Amino acid sequence: MRIAVYPGSFDPVTLGHLDIIERSSKMVDELVVGVLNNSSKNPLFSVEERVTMLKEVTVHLQNVRVEAFDGLLVDFARQCGSKMVVRGLRAITDFEYELQMSQTNRIICPEMDTIFLTTDLKYAYLSSSIVREMARYGGNISAFVPALIVERVLKKFE
Amino acid sequence: MRIAVYPGSFDPVTLGHLDIIERSSKMVDELVVGVLNNSSKNPLFSVEERVTMLKEVTVHLQNVRVEAFDGLLVDFARQCGSKMVVRGLRAITDFEYELQMSQTNRIICPEMDTIFLTTDLKYAYLSSSIVREMARYGGNISAFVPALIVERVLKKFE
Amino acid sequence: MRIAVYPGSFDPVTLGHLDIIERSSKMVDELVVGVLNNSSKNPLFSVEERVTMLKEVTVHLQNVRVEAFDGLLVDFARQCGSKMVVRGLRAITDFEYELQMSQTNRIICPEMDTIFLTTDLKYAYLSSSIVREMARYGGNISAFVPALIVERVLKKFE
Amino acid sequence: MRIAVYPGSFDPVTLGHLDIIERSSKMVDELVVGVLNNSSKNPLFSVEERVTMLKEVTVHLQNVRVEAFDGLLVDFARQCGSKMVVRGLRAITDFEYELQMSQTNRIICPEMDTIFLTTDLKYAYLSSSIVREMARYGGNISAFVPALIVERVLKKFE
Amino acid sequence: MRIAVYPGSFDPVTLGHLDIIERSSKMVDELVVGVLNNSSKNPLFSVEERVTMLKEVTVHLQNVRVEAFDGLLVDFARQCGSKMVVRGLRAITDFEYELQMSQTNRIICPEMDTIFLTTDLKYAYLSSSIVREMARYGGNISAFVPALIVERVLKKFE
Amino acid sequence: MRIAVYPGSFDPVTLGHLDIIERSSKMVDELVVGVLNNSSKNPLFSVEERVTMLKEVTVHLQNVRVEAFDGLLVDFARQCGSKMVVRGLRAITDFEYELQMSQTNRIICPEMDTIFLTTDLKYAYLSSSIVREMARYGGNISAFVPALIVERVLKKFE
Repeated sequence: MRIAVYPGSFDPVTLGHLDIIERSSKMVDELVVGVLNNSSKNPLFSVEERVTMLKEVTVHLQNVRVEAFDGLLVDFARQCGSKMVVRGLRAITDFEYELQMSQTNRIICPEMDTIFLTTDLKYAYLSSSIVREMARYGGNISAFVPALIVERVLKKFE
Repeated sequence: MRIAVYPGSFDPVTLGHLDIIERSSKMVDELVVGVLNNSSKNPLFSVEERVTMLKEVTVHLQNVRVEAFDGLLVDFARQCGSKMVVRGLRAITDFEYELQMSQTNRIICPEMDTIFLTTDLKYAYLSSSIVREMARYGGNISAFVPALIVERVLKKFE
Repeated sequence: MRIAVYPGSFDPVTLGHLDIIERSSKMVDELVVGVLNNSSKNPLFSVEERVTMLKEVTVHLQNVRVEAFDGLLVDFARQCGSKMVVRGLRAITDFEYELQMSQTNRIICPEMDTIFLTTDLKYAYLSSSIVREMARYGGNISAFVPALIVERVLKKFE
Repeated sequence: MRIAVYPGSFDPVTLGHLDIIERSSKMVDELVVGVLNNSSKNPLFSVEERVTMLKEVTVHLQNVRVEAFDGLLVDFARQCGSKMVVRGLRAITDFEYELQMSQTNRIICPEMDTIFLTTDLKYAYLSSSIVREMARYGGNISAFVPALIVERVLKKFE
Repeated sequence: MRIAVYPGSFDPVTLGHLDIIERSSKMVDELVVGVLNNSSKNPLFSVEERVTMLKEVTVHLQNVRVEAFDGLLVDFARQCGSKMVVRGLRAITDFEYELQMSQTNRIICPEMDTIFLTTDLKYAYLSSSIVREMARYGGNISAFVPALIVERVLKKFE
Repeated sequence: MRIAVYPGSFDPVTLGHLDIIERSSKMVDELVVGVLNNSSKNPLFSVEERVTMLKEVTVHLQNVRVEAFDGLLVDFARQCGSKMVVRGLRAITDFEYELQMSQTNRIICPEMDTIFLTTDLKYAYLSSSIVREMARYGGNISAFVPALIVERVLKKFE
């Protein structure tokens, strides 16, 4: 059985993330969306809230599971029985960081590999931080996040 | 009447900013320099000081106005009666961030457009943060900021 | 009167070019689309055919004129009474080449300036050479070029 | 059954290509290596020679098939019953070209997707053209191509 | 006598840093490794600890000296009697920042020049921050830092 | 004795090349400017003409020698008794190509190293091909090449 892990902060999940989840879930038997619980950052949504939102927006995808994790990605992937990490690529800046992480992961865990999907053009310049910035000033974020999420993001800035 | 907005932090204004202001002011009937009052950052100069400095160094440019703003750029531009944002491009890193912002702005406000000018070669690697770093250690910043500003920047680090 | 020049090969004109023409024509009093007659290249369409196609697809834009030119861009712009060149930016590779050209043009003609518009996301990875490549193998190019042009491009490869 | 296509010129196959073939073949049920027969280029090896070399160096990989193709990649992939294209990423220049191609392919064939693998660090700056350049001047290419291929490349330049 | 300065934070020194030290020390009569004491950052190791570690791992290199510094790099270089700064280049992001710094340094001190060495492929995606991240979660860092250092880094996170 | 090699096509030599020659010649005991005789290209100036022009414009630099070469750069460097190659870096596109070449050279000749200097800002977007393009249309090239060379370049296009 082929299992892949798609890790991220998802603070909040965007339509760009959802695009990667939908496309990569077709390529494997199971896709585990791993929500990073990064204690050194101060997220907008708690890790539990982020897991809940991801579960709701991926409910139509049978082979997608959502789980929180902390620590090293390679350890989380191993626990999931996965040797394949999925990452979305938007732009050059992403690319360098992602190369660095995938190369580092292969050194510390040679049997682990990373596959990259290019984000759909419509979402090429979309990020969670752009969404938070828009929402902070009352901007319309319905073109950026799943409909189910819009209200919850806006509420955080009321 | 064609009005353009040139937004930034200008903390402090550099010769590179001034170059963009001078060149873009020739392309429009009015140029509004918008000084971002970003409450989440801790600027060297207050937004009032930055507006004052910009007014002094652009006093020779009749069709340039300086104003502070906070919130979303598209809202500020709309208030100014402007559909055109001006940005300077120095290098690749700029480019990706600027693309992201201009695309985002066009999605939330389709009639708004961004034009980019390339920074003069002499100022291609100049930024406000470089100026602050130089000034912190008593470096000579007269090649980087307008003459009127030099003393005020150095005073901040005394 | 503000006149800008938008130069290119337009072999053939794409929806990305048309997007730049429509947006930049709103920023000036007159936009001259300059079709480069590069004798050292072997174009798919003759310069006359390219001028004709551009005239047809810009017929709805009152302040757009189409003209062929050869030689240096700065000389052509001067002849048009223009001090402003318009260029579209798609990606990093573009960016470096465009920076080089705009800096060179400012050195040989300091009163000439270049403004850049970012290509609409939908056309971010579109180019005339991609269109020719698709058409060569009978691919569907209707998402890439104006409807008026589709047949003419396909005919060239029959 | 999951089938992926790994297209390229392979003129000649390098250790970098072989690394991508070995890694991606583990991710799918069948991997078809597609050798592009680009009539407008003047290759060092004929398409038949390139297919033969690839078959020899992948003989240990049971689920890898090698085939020549010309025309559009999406048509070839469809013929193979595949909805997945595999590409290796070495550097930024690659990245932009690859993004362009993957986005174009998704527009003309929406059910087709591209996955990217990052080339192993050891081969990050290796390309077929570097190999040909080295071989032309009698350089030692054994660090760059499979052992089976070394002699055949050198012979071409005798 | 040709003296060069190789500045950095070295928090902690990596095998990539050591590679640059070994190679650049062959090109000059004396190489001074300058350990930046950046008071605005919160380092893992104190500047004294970093100097000590660098001295230990460069003990085999006769013409290498290690010193702490704060303030501007050009002032430190001048004190060392050096007109040459050495920097390692890994990737594009580095490149832009390094260009910016080298150009700035040449403006404030025209007789000072910077030479760049490209990091060995094996260490192309290695950085002190990756090492700290790995160590934080108990990852194996022996492929990333000199053997002498491994224990000291891990101890910091116990 | 420290000898470095600065290879290139120099077709023709530009002020950017001369800047690199002047700066790097101060860092070594001898600098050999290597003029590549690339038989597969069709240069504007013969290799003899390029050597002559370089000798004339470097006549004030006592420790600079000019020589033609063909074949592999590492072989030429070895013949010159040099273990150090000098290259100028202007922009990102350069950077990737240069990284590729320097890494390849270190693999085929591990004792050979490459140092990079960043081109002076004034010449950051200057290249021999830009000079040829300007000259072809009678543009003023005196800001781009040494005064001694201007006439000879223009004559080629009469």
